[in-house]
This record gives sequence, structure tokens and C-alpha cells, in this order.
Amino acid sequence: MHKSLAHAVDGLVVKALRTWDMVRPGERILLGASGGKDSAILARDLALKHSQGRLDAELCALHIRNDFSPDAMSARLAEEYAAWGIPLVTIDVAVIGRLKPGRKMNCYWCSTQRRTELFKYAMEHGYTTVALGHHLDDVLETLFMNMMRKAELSTMPPVIQYRKYPVRVIRPLYLVEERQILELAGELGILATTCSCGYNDRSERDRVRGRVEALTGGSSQAKRNLLESLRHISPDYLPR
Amino acid sequence: MHKSLAHAVDGLVVKALRTWDMVRPGERILLGASGGKDSAILARDLALKHSQGRLDAELCALHIRNDFSPDAMSARLAEEYAAWGIPLVTIDVAVIGRLKPGRKMNCYWCSTQRRTELFKYAMEHGYTTVALGHHLDDVLETLFMNMMRKAELSTMPPVIQYRKYPVRVIRPLYLVEERQILELAGELGILATTCSCGYNDRSERDRVRGRVEALTGGSSQAKRNLLESLRHISPDYLPR
Repeated sequence: MHKSLAHAVDGLVVKALRTWDMVRPGERILLGASGGKDSAILARDLALKHSQGRLDAELCALHIRNDFSPDAMSARLAEEYAAWGIPLVTIDVAVIGRLKPGRKMNCYWCSTQRRTELFKYAMEHGYTTVALGHHLDDVLETLFMNMMRKAELSTMPPVIQYRKYPVRVIRPLYLVEERQILELAGELGILATTCSCGYNDRSERDRVRGRVEALTGGSSQAKRNLLESLRHISPDYLPR
Repeated sequence: MHKSLAHAVDGLVVKALRTWDMVRPGERILLGASGGKDSAILARDLALKHSQGRLDAELCALHIRNDFSPDAMSARLAEEYAAWGIPLVTIDVAVIGRLKPGRKMNCYWCSTQRRTELFKYAMEHGYTTVALGHHLDDVLETLFMNMMRKAELSTMPPVIQYRKYPVRVIRPLYLVEERQILELAGELGILATTCSCGYNDRSERDRVRGRVEALTGGSSQAKRNLLESLRHISPDYLPR
């Protein structure tokens, strides 16, 4: 295995955990487990830190199985979670019936449904923190979608305390690039599922992702600087 | 002439003047006149507003002629300034001799030298405001250069009061796209000069400009939203 890649990802997660004070000692953390590579790499990384005594927290993964994409979590990936020492709970949620008449299914709506279920489970089972697998490219993609479509400078924050729920969301992969996740998943032989529900409407997101690649020329440093610039805002040098 | 283009540019300048309160009644404004199309369109627009009684200000244009690019302001463009009713003053400044030994000439250094001369002239001749011809594409280009290279969220502001000088800088073309300026200059038959001093090092800026085009897909709305997003910053949805 490519030691320096695993080491780099480990270091970037440590940096994110520290920079944004993501985990309080002894905290109970619920990991969202979609069946995809991002949440798998997140689970594997936190499990490793936990087993090495570098993460004082209790971990549990929750997979929300829904009725139009019931095979999102493969049996083989579920075994990986077990091998990493993370309990994986699966709950069935029928979301198709929740659609209002005349409304079409879409990824935004589906992920909101799953998010709500994650929060509900967390609150009912005493988890104070929900960890999600969003990475640096997700953050930049959302940033530019919000800037170009909504004329708003905002994105997914690394930590968010919701007002509606007594639950925090943390994103430990905030500083990790998607290419690092893909490569690491490949090296580890993690066979993740890509959502194939048939309602997939990622075309807009994929287009924006390609455009962010064009903007940065694919440079990791340019991407990291874009993210870092959001922490160094100079109001005197911006339009009011 | 394409009436709606001239009308659109006029409206965008009016909007910028109002949004950022650029001109105080009776103010004496010194326009930077490089010899290029941007400052020419700026001069023509403000002159028109002035002659129509829509701009209560006194206008004068200043061209800094330097010793390595002495033909930047063509005789024909100088005649246009006269036709627009704007006095055009030309001063000669030898900048080559100012270069420290061993330092190479570059566009940033040259523009800083000319900026300093503009401020000096303004202060010596009682101008309280210096108007520059930077447009929307310049603003976005600088934004992304600062984000990707310096990890800083900043750009050229529409109005800036310098601490070192008792002079404000305003950028009335802040909301106008370069393509609008090019097209309008073409329609008006304005023959502007492109700097050909031989030291031209715009390659980095040109690359970033092309990348901003790729990010936005050349969409005017996307560009305007990018700019507008800088005025709608959501701290709760950004990394701290």
C-alpha cells in the first residue's frame, strides 16, 4: 500500500478535527454510511484512529436503506465496517410514499430525507454528533454553485450546530480531496456502490465539478487556497 | 449604433455610481487615461452623463506617458477625448531610471508607478477622486488570483479611500463586462492602443481570465452572481 497517501489522508483528518474542534472527549458519534466510498473512507479513518487510541469517542455507523435504492450498501462493504470494528446499523425507510403528489424525486430531496432520519436516530439513541463524508471537492462544488446560482458566498461548513436539532454535524474529510479518497479506496480494495437509483440528477453538480477543475487547472494547491481564502476575508477589499 | 448596448452600459455605470455612492456633488474627478479601450469607454460614458446634466462633477483626464511605451495614447484617441469635451493632460514620467539595479520591469511595477503619478497629480491639482477603468472581468480575475495564489478573499473594491493619500479611487465600470466594452468601443470606432512595451507579462492574468470563463461557461449571469455573492457572505456557512 502507498504509505504516504494513507498518511496524508490521516494527517488531513487530524488537521480538520483540530482546526474546527470537531470531537469532544468521550463523545458518541454517529457516522452516516451511504454505501459509497466517501463515507467508507471516513469510517475506516476514524476507526483506525480509535483503535490506535488517538480518538476518544464512541463510533456507530447508520445506513438508511430506502425503497427505491435498496442495494446501496453492499454485503462486502458491510463486512469491511465489521472488520474496522464499527457497528453498522441499517434501518429501512420508505421515502417514495413521502413524495407529495405531482413532485418528482431528486437527489436533494432524497438526501434531505436521509439526513432527517440520521438526526432522528441520533437523538433517539443519544448521539450528539453526526459525521458526514463530504470532502474538499464537495465543499468547493457547493461554494461555486451557491456563488453562481444563488449569488451567495456560502458552502457546507466543517461543523454546524443546528438550531432545530440538539445535534452537531461534523465533516472530518473537509480537507481531503476526492482524488485522494478514490485512490485510497482503490488501494484498500473498498468496493463501494455508486447510487444507481435511476432518479440520479447529478448532472448540474457534475458540470460545476468539471468547471472547478478548469478553474484550478486540477491543482491541489489552488483548491486548498480557494478553501483557505474563505477563512481570510478582507472586507476592505470587497464590494459592500 | 446598437442602442441597447450603449443603454445597458450607461445603466450599469449609473447603478455602480449609486450603489457605492461614488460621486459627491460638484466633485473634481481625475480620470486615468491609459490609451486603452477601458479608460476610453469610461471617459466617454462620464462625459456623456456630464453633458446631459446627469453628473454633477468636473472631469479631467490624465495620461502618464512613460519612456518605454511613449505611443500608448494615439493622436486619434486624444481627439476623441477632445470631442467628448474632456480636457486631456499628458505628463511625461521617466520610469525606466526608477528601476532598482538588477530588477526587471513588469506590469505590476509599471502600473504602480503610474498610479503613484496619478495620485500625485490629483493632490497637486485639487482632485479628490481618481476614476479608473477596471471592469467586472478585471474584478473577477483579481478575485480568483488572490483566492488561488494568496489564499485571500479580496479583490479591487469599487471605492477605496487610501490612508496614505487624501484621494479616493472609484471604478465606475465595476459592473460592466469586458465584452460589452469591446463591443461598444468597436461600434463607436474607438481605436485604442494595446500596450506593446515588450515587457508585457500578462500571461498569468490571461490564464486566470480564461479559467474564469471556463468556470462561468462565459455566462454573464454567472459572472454577475459571482460578484454579487461577495456582498452576501454567510459566516455561519463558511469555515472559520
